[in-house]
Amino acid sequence: MKKVAVVLSGCGQLDGAEIHESIITLLALDRRGAETQTFAPDKDQMQVINHLTGEIEEENRNLLVEAGRIGRGNVQDLADANIEHFDAVIFPGGYGVAKNLCDFAVKGTECSVDPLVERFILNGLQAKKVMGFICIAPALLAKVSGDHGLKIDLTIGTDPETAQAVETMGAHHISCSVNEIVVDEKNRIVTTPAYMLGQRISEVADGIGKLVDKVLQMC
Amino acid sequence: MKKVAVVLSGCGQLDGAEIHESIITLLALDRRGAETQTFAPDKDQMQVINHLTGEIEEENRNLLVEAGRIGRGNVQDLADANIEHFDAVIFPGGYGVAKNLCDFAVKGTECSVDPLVERFILNGLQAKKVMGFICIAPALLAKVSGDHGLKIDLTIGTDPETAQAVETMGAHHISCSVNEIVVDEKNRIVTTPAYMLGQRISEVADGIGKLVDKVLQMC
Repeated sequence: MKKVAVVLSGCGQLDGAEIHESIITLLALDRRGAETQTFAPDKDQMQVINHLTGEIEEENRNLLVEAGRIGRGNVQDLADANIEHFDAVIFPGGYGVAKNLCDFAVKGTECSVDPLVERFILNGLQAKKVMGFICIAPALLAKVSGDHGLKIDLTIGTDPETAQAVETMGAHHISCSVNEIVVDEKNRIVTTPAYMLGQRISEVADGIGKLVDKVLQMC
Repeated sequence: MKKVAVVLSGCGQLDGAEIHESIITLLALDRRGAETQTFAPDKDQMQVINHLTGEIEEENRNLLVEAGRIGRGNVQDLADANIEHFDAVIFPGGYGVAKNLCDFAVKGTECSVDPLVERFILNGLQAKKVMGFICIAPALLAKVSGDHGLKIDLTIGTDPETAQAVETMGAHHISCSVNEIVVDEKNRIVTTPAYMLGQRISEVADGIGKLVDKVLQMC
């Protein structure tokens, strides 16, 4: 049975992990017989957003605690994650990736990455684990890999500005439709645009399904 | 195109809508070409639970605002829902149904139902809309229908105590496995146990997929 770590960044598209993408990923992995473990860093979110109004709330929430809603209580601190226990890693998207796992949402190409997240991704690259990045998560990968001289083929969909940003950070961007994937065979990376482009949950699920298929096939 | 209202009770299994069940329902409906609109009552949750520790937090959250995380901002106040605009209604589960939409989690068979939710369900029954209830949500239906002299065939899985409770409230309980459904053709009600029994997200998705198939077929 293949073991896959799924790294969450909270619970909710505007300040945490994109919920649809996270659940679709967990469902696709379970349907294909993979064993999953969800992780999140144990720290406060950058902000809490009211998902009806889009306004910032005067409130603090913890990534790991909120990710517990997606993981039904079974979420572990990313600090305790050992890459050697897993065959693959998947990062769903959501603004939480660009606000909590790094600060790309605020600082763009000058962003910095949470040290724990950076170490986990670097360990995955070094150990040649297969890794999938969904939606905006490839921007996080672009920063980490670019800073270490790796030029990875990836996609964030078709948005010219974000595509330019990931290129500036050192990746090679390939345009991709919502129901397709981009594969970097050499670096063992799979990416799909999901809600960077998706208008319907079913088309997002098509792309994530293909990503999960490819990730498990490459393990 | 069939139109389906999905009624949420927050965001998170211990104090709101069960996230897996909610997303699986929305995905299954979209995959089958149905148009969906999510709703939730605009009021505070009964409580906020830390989903890692199970402890009650000193905090208030609003059902409608939190449901916005599941609905990606597109959730409407249940007070504005007109049953005539829909072919069917689905209630995913989660403790939010038994804490926020009614107080079955606290008062059992002596529970009372949120008046807005009660009115919406009664309108659905009277208008002969097809309605699906997932996980613990059939207990809510049992209370509303039982109070109005309707004996509906439904399932909450196999738990003897909960089964007895829904019988006491006036329903006819039928045991059912996680990947199956119970259909009351006369009252146009479909139920499935989901996480009342489920150990894996994929088996929960199998049962909800059958529920959505049946609901759309009966419309």
